This record gives sequence, structure tokens and C-alpha cells, in this order.
Amino acid sequence: MAKPVTISLDGMGGDNAPAIVIDGAARALKKYPSAHFVIFGDEAQIRPLVDRHPQLAAASTLRHTPDRVTSEDKPAMALRQGRQSSMRLAIDAVANAEADAVVSAGNTGALMAMAKFSLKVMPGIDRPAICTYMPTKIPGHGAVFLDLGANVECDPQNLLEFAVLGGVFSREVFKIDAPKIGLLNIGSEAMKGTDLVKGAAELLDKAKLPGRYVGYAEGDEIMAGHFDVIITDGFTGNVALKTIEGTAKALGSMVKQAFKGSLLMKLGMLLALPGLIVALPALIALKKRADPRYYNGASLLGLKGLCIKSHGGTDAIGFANAIGVAIDLAGNQFNRKVEAELERLGHGQPVIAAVEGAA
Amino acid sequence: MAKPVTISLDGMGGDNAPAIVIDGAARALKKYPSAHFVIFGDEAQIRPLVDRHPQLAAASTLRHTPDRVTSEDKPAMALRQGRQSSMRLAIDAVANAEADAVVSAGNTGALMAMAKFSLKVMPGIDRPAICTYMPTKIPGHGAVFLDLGANVECDPQNLLEFAVLGGVFSREVFKIDAPKIGLLNIGSEAMKGTDLVKGAAELLDKAKLPGRYVGYAEGDEIMAGHFDVIITDGFTGNVALKTIEGTAKALGSMVKQAFKGSLLMKLGMLLALPGLIVALPALIALKKRADPRYYNGASLLGLKGLCIKSHGGTDAIGFANAIGVAIDLAGNQFNRKVEAELERLGHGQPVIAAVEGAA
Repeated sequence: MAKPVTISLDGMGGDNAPAIVIDGAARALKKYPSAHFVIFGDEAQIRPLVDRHPQLAAASTLRHTPDRVTSEDKPAMALRQGRQSSMRLAIDAVANAEADAVVSAGNTGALMAMAKFSLKVMPGIDRPAICTYMPTKIPGHGAVFLDLGANVECDPQNLLEFAVLGGVFSREVFKIDAPKIGLLNIGSEAMKGTDLVKGAAELLDKAKLPGRYVGYAEGDEIMAGHFDVIITDGFTGNVALKTIEGTAKALGSMVKQAFKGSLLMKLGMLLALPGLIVALPALIALKKRADPRYYNGASLLGLKGLCIKSHGGTDAIGFANAIGVAIDLAGNQFNRKVEAELERLGHGQPVIAAVEGAA
Repeated sequence: MAKPVTISLDGMGGDNAPAIVIDGAARALKKYPSAHFVIFGDEAQIRPLVDRHPQLAAASTLRHTPDRVTSEDKPAMALRQGRQSSMRLAIDAVANAEADAVVSAGNTGALMAMAKFSLKVMPGIDRPAICTYMPTKIPGHGAVFLDLGANVECDPQNLLEFAVLGGVFSREVFKIDAPKIGLLNIGSEAMKGTDLVKGAAELLDKAKLPGRYVGYAEGDEIMAGHFDVIITDGFTGNVALKTIEGTAKALGSMVKQAFKGSLLMKLGMLLALPGLIVALPALIALKKRADPRYYNGASLLGLKGLCIKSHGGTDAIGFANAIGVAIDLAGNQFNRKVEAELERLGHGQPVIAAVEGAA
């Protein structure tokens, strides 16, 4: 992480922009003091926010853009009419090699459309994928999970490419030498699953991957820590990701209701207060471990430039984490490593041959 | 629930059979005192267990079967060679109208194969589906969820049939007059999703369902309580169901690790003990609400007889809950209600016409 990186930021994207973008960048700068930022957006709004953080002011360049993409804009419309938007110009900064990666909390569809158009798909990759990592039962371990919705209909070759992208992600970001790669399915036996899954398993078995293809992973193994990378089509991945969010929210809501609904619970917690205060650091660590803000930042992988999507509703902590993902990927030269993997696999190997066939 | 029902039990199915089957039946009998059981299995093992519960002994008939299906048996093999197994004879008791429903914690594949063969698919239904219900944020509310894995590849017509089965389930078991039915997808806009989802949405929009088709539901809405019924193909449903289980387990595991790993946490909890004891009833109620045993019992719907699959690893509490599902469905004459819905919809309506076309 020694090499300084430049991150371009869509200052106007997200529910609470530009405040969370600027506060998030200031926060990220504390962790990555050599980072530089190019911030795109409405200067009148952004300048006073940046000025509150002298360190950030020194480490960032502000570019005024009068235009912005809203959450209601259709991707095709944003692509045509948003050429001067903060989102588009922040992406273009990566295309122009002014920045190493872009981070935006704005409209996902517009970001994907603009990023594909401006950054272009990497040679050897048929379809870019959205990738994130999930906390698992193993402390400090993250399971790389893709595709999360970029491609609702996939073919086996797409899933093979996802395995390459996810494998390099796990190796470069989590420093796992030979990531264990699993294919999401509804059972562990070879005969189980859809034609897509069975076709992908056949390709994965033969391919030389950046990691080891272990076999099928079931839904309850995403967070179990058995796998370092879990690949699936964008429909299933998106449903699974949102199901994880929904389950955590529903359980949290049940806990809150139990506290609100019961007098005995309230009394008990009052009596327990001294103990809870003693346990506070451990309770905070626990909350942090399951806090989605610390897993914020979905990477759009397979493009010639790095593009990170932050959750639209996140706060400064979450946005700082998304910036961290961008810095990790850029600092580790993720795209060069993927290119090297594709090239290494390409000499007469099924990966490139099939990619070319599918393209 | 006034009408007494007879439930046939596969006494030998499940990791902890026959003990959990017998103890589960005894427990269910306390809640449903007019129920009768026909228990199939090894008499030498089962008789002493039943005799420990005089009430159950009086309310049950024991049928000795020397044979059993194991968890390793392939479905086709079990179907051919398991004609004298406890699982098969318990199913046959429903086919012979000796029992109103069957409950088994045994091999899922074998149970489905045998149930389809022995009970036969209901006229007007192309494919039976596996259905369960999930707790939601709304206290006392269950979201009916299907298909959970019976059909990995579906067509839009199958999903329409699942809406009929799920709608009647919600109405009869949860007494919801006009269940809100959602179709699992990766966004709420009409253009989102796979061809399967868009095709199903078109059918659902036109069909007169036992409930109201509301539109797309996302993964984070399964447990949110916005929907009474959520339908999807068996691949996505199985992944989502297991993802819910896995998320709950991973979060539980993080809590346990926080307690075990931190001295301050242990000390704090010790100090908090008096308060925790006061709050105990509320804490137990909370645990119960999220306890999967209280949602155990997946129904194989769309057959001419009722068949309930209990989780293989459950205990007596979980097995009793599965029996409860069987009694609820049988007591409410679930299958007759489904037939009536199919008939009502069938007169020139797209449901039956398309079913016949697809068959």
C-alpha cells in the first residue's frame, strides 16, 4: 500500500451527498494518509465541507460540475444527458488516467452504464460483475461474493470469468494465497442444480484459476467461512445479498421490539447497566463486526478502470469503507493482476478460447 | 380445528429418530388433544418410547415396519426398494385415506419421490412445490414462501400455480383474508429481472388469485412483513431459505465469539446477571421468536394428499411444530380449498387453460 493512489469521487451521489462523501473522504484519509482525491460536484456546496477538514483540503482537488445524476434517472437517459454530471466526470477521470479508481454512492444503474461506456470492458472478460465481500464466522475473514446483479442471465463462461475476478480479489485484498472458490447451488451433489450451474461446474473443474475450485456452496455457506470466493449469476446473487440484509434487519427489529415491548426487559436492562458498561468495548466490537457499513463498497469488476459503488443510504463511515476498497484494489494493481491471470490462462486454456467463442 | 384429524408419522426418519418423533408427537398432542397418530417404524424401538407417554399411547396406533429409508438413499432407489419402509407406508396411509397428512423428518429427495408417486399430483397443478413460512418483523405474522427446491427450473405457469398454493396456505393457516402475494425479484421496476420473472408477472397480473398480487418483492422483503406470500422458482427459493439460515447462524456465532473472547464481556455479564434474570421471560420470548424450531415443517403442496417434511436435524419441539403444520392444513381441508380455487379460476380463466397447455 506504499504507492500513493488517486481516487476520484462523485461528490453528488447518494442520499446524503455531498456531506457523507466529504466526511467519508476525510475519514479514509486518516487510514490512508498518502491518498489523493479528486472530488467532482457543486463547488458551492462542497468547498465549505472540505474546508472543515484541513488535511483533506490539502490532499484533494475540487472540480466544479453543475450537473448531477439523480436516483430516479434511467441509465440510458443518464448516459445520454449526464455527460457533465459529477458521476460521469468522476468516472472519466479514471478513463483519462487522472485517477486510479472512482467511488460513487449514486444511482447504480447509471453508474454501471456510464462505467461500462467510459471505462470499457477488459479484454478477455465478456461481462463485468458486481462484487462485494461478506463477513463470515471466522474473525477477520471476508467471503468475496459475485455477481450481485450486473448480469441477471448468465452462461457458464460468465461464471468462470467471475471466478477469475473473485479469486484475484480475494488474493490481492485479503492476501489469501489460494482462495477456495465455491459455486452457489442448492446442494453439494454433482447432479444438483440448474443447467447453468452444472455447465459452470464443468468449466471450473478444468480451469486453472487464481485459487482452487472446491465445488458447490449452499446459501448457508456464504457467511460460514468455508469459502473465500462464492460465485453465482446476478439474479441469485442479488436475491441472496438482499436476503442477508433483510435477515439481519428482521432479527435486529425483533430484538428492538423485545426491548420496547416488555417492562421486565426494561427493568432488567436497567439493573444490568453497570455490567453492560463494563462489557461495552466488547459489545461495540460485536456491533462493528456485523455492521454493514464496514462491508460497504461493491466493486464493478471486469472493466479497464476501477469503479466502486457505495450504498446510496450509507453514512461517512460506510463511504470511507468504500473508499478503502477502492484504495486497496488500486494500490494492489488489481486490474493488472486480473489481466495477468487471463493471459496466463489464455495460452490454449479453455478460459480465453471460450471467452473468444462467446464474445 | 374441531374436526379430529389423523396424522401418519414416519417413525424412523431424521437424525434423532425415533426419539424426536415420539416425543414430538406427545408434545403436539398437548396442543391438539383430539389428534390421532399412526406411527410407522421399528416396534421394538418405538413401543417403549410411546409407553412413556400414556396420553400418546391412547391416541396412537403403531405399525411395525422392518425397513427404513436412510439419508444416503438415492430417491429413485428408495422408490424402488423402499416399499416396506416406514416412510413409504406412512405416505401410503394418506393415499389410502387412513390418515389426513403425513409427517417425516427423513431423506427429502426420497420423501418427495415417494409422495409424488403414491399421492399423485393434484389435477390443475403441473408441479408440486415445497412451502414453508418465515417469521417477519410483524409479531405473529408469517410469510408463506415457496418453492424451496422442488423445481429448480420453472416456467411462468409454475409460478402462477405456486401463487394459488401459497395464497390458500396463507388464508387457511394464518387466516389472512386477502393475502398480499409478491414475486421475488431483484428490483421493483417492471423492466427488472429474468424472462421467467417478467413472464410470471404478466400471468399474475391477469389471474384471479386467492389473494392480491402486489408485484415484485426483493430479498430483503421476505422477512419484512410487507408480503403474506412470496413466490419464486425452487433454485432461488432454496438459496434464499438457506441464506436466511446461514445469516442467522453467522450472527449467532459472532455473538457467541464476543462472549467467549472477551474477559470484559464475561465480567460485564456477571455484573449484569441480576438484570438479565429479571429480563429472562422477555429474553426467552425473543429467542423463541427467532428459533427455527418454531418454523419447522415444510409442506409439499400440490399433491392429492398432504405431506410435511420436518428438518432432519430437529428435536422434539421442532417435530411437534411440523405436526402442527400438518394438523392445521388437514383440519382446514387445505387441499379441498386449493381444488375449489383451481376450479373457480378454471372456467375460461388463464390458469387452468395454461396448465392444460403446459401438461
